[in-house]
Amino acid sequence: MIQNALHQSKQYLKEIVRPGDRVIDATAGNGHDTLFLAKLVGETGQVLAFDIQEQAIASTKKRLQEADVSSWCQVILDSHANLEKYIESPIRAVVFNLGYLPGAEHEVTTESTSTWQAIETALKWLEPGGRIVIVIYHGHVSGKLERQALLNQVSTLPQEEVQVFHSAFLNQKNSPPELLVIEKKSR
Amino acid sequence: MIQNALHQSKQYLKEIVRPGDRVIDATAGNGHDTLFLAKLVGETGQVLAFDIQEQAIASTKKRLQEADVSSWCQVILDSHANLEKYIESPIRAVVFNLGYLPGAEHEVTTESTSTWQAIETALKWLEPGGRIVIVIYHGHVSGKLERQALLNQVSTLPQEEVQVFHSAFLNQKNSPPELLVIEKKSR
Repeated sequence: MIQNALHQSKQYLKEIVRPGDRVIDATAGNGHDTLFLAKLVGETGQVLAFDIQEQAIASTKKRLQEADVSSWCQVILDSHANLEKYIESPIRAVVFNLGYLPGAEHEVTTESTSTWQAIETALKWLEPGGRIVIVIYHGHVSGKLERQALLNQVSTLPQEEVQVFHSAFLNQKNSPPELLVIEKKSR
Repeated sequence: MIQNALHQSKQYLKEIVRPGDRVIDATAGNGHDTLFLAKLVGETGQVLAFDIQEQAIASTKKRLQEADVSSWCQVILDSHANLEKYIESPIRAVVFNLGYLPGAEHEVTTESTSTWQAIETALKWLEPGGRIVIVIYHGHVSGKLERQALLNQVSTLPQEEVQVFHSAFLNQKNSPPELLVIEKKSR
């Protein structure tokens, strides 16, 4: 079986994140990716995790505590649109899950304006060889709009500076998640 | 660096082709993929390679002879549209490079009708877990039409029977090759 977007996203992170790296989970949700990143960077690394929902912050904190990795993770109740306020040094990777928090109100979804702001900030601080990995859940109406806006935007990024890779399953009903990977080129 | 479509195509073949398998290079071209497949299946396997240009057949035969793998490879001067005439038992993988033969006349290109016929035949004979791996070169005008026709066609394949995976680089000029992988599901 060809791996789904979620599995592939983890693979693309694993390939480039090393112990001691500084990384970001832009959409903490239930904290699965935050924990995944925390294990990759280890106690000499640092993870910043963002979410705009208190429920997500609580779940993420609980998950990190249970895995005993909290000491090198910071869980922040704020939009990833405000990423700039929290980054002070180069980062190795950023992960986004675009869509809604599984199990929560579907009215609260990510949206393309804040996503694009976060991506622009992330690109500024990304190390050469670093990656922004985005899983796009677009089963809902606003998700389809967000998806299209994002694909248009990333298509304009300069090829001298970044690679923009997109993958999708073409013949499935129910809009399976798609994957987007933006890698900063080494100079 | 995220690997380009050509490298990724080899990876998707490598993952599932085993010694002793029967495989097909639907567009032999200069024989690079034929040789790659010949090495994967080994002398207990079998490779059928097709091309409609004598120049391609000659290059492929030469390459296979030089690598001393000819005895388990059959190089056939015919269109992959006629695949049906040559297959008698299940196959593990088929590779296509859609576009024109590098270094040859650009007027001779693959086209969507024969490609689709070949894919339909291949799907009939493909083992569960087997893959059709397609690299789409679409820098030329007819290549863009062929690409779009193919993406539309594969999107209609039944999701109960096959996975259809597509990947592309979104922000590059000069239409870099795209990748399409069709995997037959296990029952």
